Amino acid sequence: MSAAANTSGPVAWIAVDWGTSRLRGWAMAADGRPVEARDSADGMGGLAPDQFGPALDRLTAGWPGDVPVIACGMVGSRQGWVEAPYAAVPCAPLAVTPVRVPGPRAVHIVPGLKQAAPPDVMRGEETQIAGYLAAHPGWDGVICLPGTHTKWAEISAGEVVSFRTFMTGELYALLSAHSVLRHSVAEGWDEAAFAAGVDDAIARPAEIAALLFRIRADHLLNGTAPGRAAARLSGLLIGAELAAARPYWLGREVAIIGADRIAAAYAAALSAQAVPVDRAGAEDMTLRGLAAARLLLGATR
Amino acid sequence: MSAAANTSGPVAWIAVDWGTSRLRGWAMAADGRPVEARDSADGMGGLAPDQFGPALDRLTAGWPGDVPVIACGMVGSRQGWVEAPYAAVPCAPLAVTPVRVPGPRAVHIVPGLKQAAPPDVMRGEETQIAGYLAAHPGWDGVICLPGTHTKWAEISAGEVVSFRTFMTGELYALLSAHSVLRHSVAEGWDEAAFAAGVDDAIARPAEIAALLFRIRADHLLNGTAPGRAAARLSGLLIGAELAAARPYWLGREVAIIGADRIAAAYAAALSAQAVPVDRAGAEDMTLRGLAAARLLLGATR
Repeated sequence: MSAAANTSGPVAWIAVDWGTSRLRGWAMAADGRPVEARDSADGMGGLAPDQFGPALDRLTAGWPGDVPVIACGMVGSRQGWVEAPYAAVPCAPLAVTPVRVPGPRAVHIVPGLKQAAPPDVMRGEETQIAGYLAAHPGWDGVICLPGTHTKWAEISAGEVVSFRTFMTGELYALLSAHSVLRHSVAEGWDEAAFAAGVDDAIARPAEIAALLFRIRADHLLNGTAPGRAAARLSGLLIGAELAAARPYWLGREVAIIGADRIAAAYAAALSAQAVPVDRAGAEDMTLRGLAAARLLLGATR
Repeated sequence: MSAAANTSGPVAWIAVDWGTSRLRGWAMAADGRPVEARDSADGMGGLAPDQFGPALDRLTAGWPGDVPVIACGMVGSRQGWVEAPYAAVPCAPLAVTPVRVPGPRAVHIVPGLKQAAPPDVMRGEETQIAGYLAAHPGWDGVICLPGTHTKWAEISAGEVVSFRTFMTGELYALLSAHSVLRHSVAEGWDEAAFAAGVDDAIARPAEIAALLFRIRADHLLNGTAPGRAAARLSGLLIGAELAAARPYWLGREVAIIGADRIAAAYAAALSAQAVPVDRAGAEDMTLRGLAAARLLLGATR
């Protein structure tokens, strides 16, 4: 790769968030600000091991090739580019130095976290947690990271004490697109229906499989509007999750990392339970976390 | 259609179970025994309204065309051949005379059941319930019909008092084929893993979305065998359903209609809760129920 940059500022390093379906990269200035951002569909899920290097070269074409690259996410899984073995909690979110990918380019992958009992894993969220702690030194509390697989992490003294994953986002996607509910759910939103769904599921979380089918029956018998049904489906699933995650948030301060509608929905649901909520942007936390990971490599690399 | 039959006995009527994905038919003798059975992929879900007649003709080719046809299932839904409006519970499972399809052939469709509060619907299961009651006159108790959408129905004095639908079967299919769990779940079974899954979900049903992801994490960290993971997934989902359906089965006698592995799994799970279980075959109950529906039409038709 040429070091000739088409960017507007000096690029000190490259930040990469490499998930299952997406590859995102930022040319970073020395002060931690992104100079340029790019993303592509070269997610880890569609790449063979020998395709990661070329995919990174395509994404970063024109950026300096001789600066370190710090990557987080599924790129470090067993099916990824190079396995970055999990660090075991309790530990700092960046407990282990990123793993160097063999080859001419200085690419480093941040390891994920694992928990032995109950068994759980994360890859990528540890970097956002590190970013939040870098922005809030000494902060103790609970971090919620909404997504396909929502994570709840308990933070104390700079360490992830324990965490827990809920398949809520994936359940929503499967149910709304592939189940019998697809006939009753469509684009749209209704705050009141969302809130009622949260309340119903928190009150009777065990009944979730029946509450879900009731969306279909309610549509057939009463003609519920599709957008209202979508909000209720989301509310039921998030409410059931909140019921199960109660030990994490009850009487605690919760930071939600995420800026999209789903993060806003979690914030609304938690606020309705009288939980104080702080919000932080996912991209901002990823970049702060990757910057913190870079420091682990030593300032000269 | 010609009345020239290629069957071995006298055909008095034709029984049809017409679901979303499958069409099944039986040439029936006057004594209620099937003379011949056929099935096809002409489910209601793939047919336009004008394709139902030809599909039935194909299925019954060679059977008498001048005997009554009694059909149950999604064929009577709004998207089906002719809508057979729901009867409202509490009512007998066959509270309303089957709806005659316009046309030369005497085709009658059994209406489904609806419940106003909480909203719920069934189509097809009412016929199996009627079959069970025909085989067990005066029986009171709870009938569980495992399937894509499992139904629980409370029966008293020959009526369906209330019922409840759980999307358990559909959730299993979606999660095992389309979610992140597809990497960890495959063909196979493990009685102990199933029973432990049932126990865990009955004890903590609210935590289902976390218990589900744990299957994935357990596979990643501990290499759980795929067949064991499949049994645990099934156990978790059925356990969560049993927790929610507790008012239906606690201290009651439960009849399970179904003969396949999933019905056996429900029977095992209920027996582990010390619930007395009776088993009945689904096809047998469908045919008995359709025979009962035929009697509603009058003996001469």
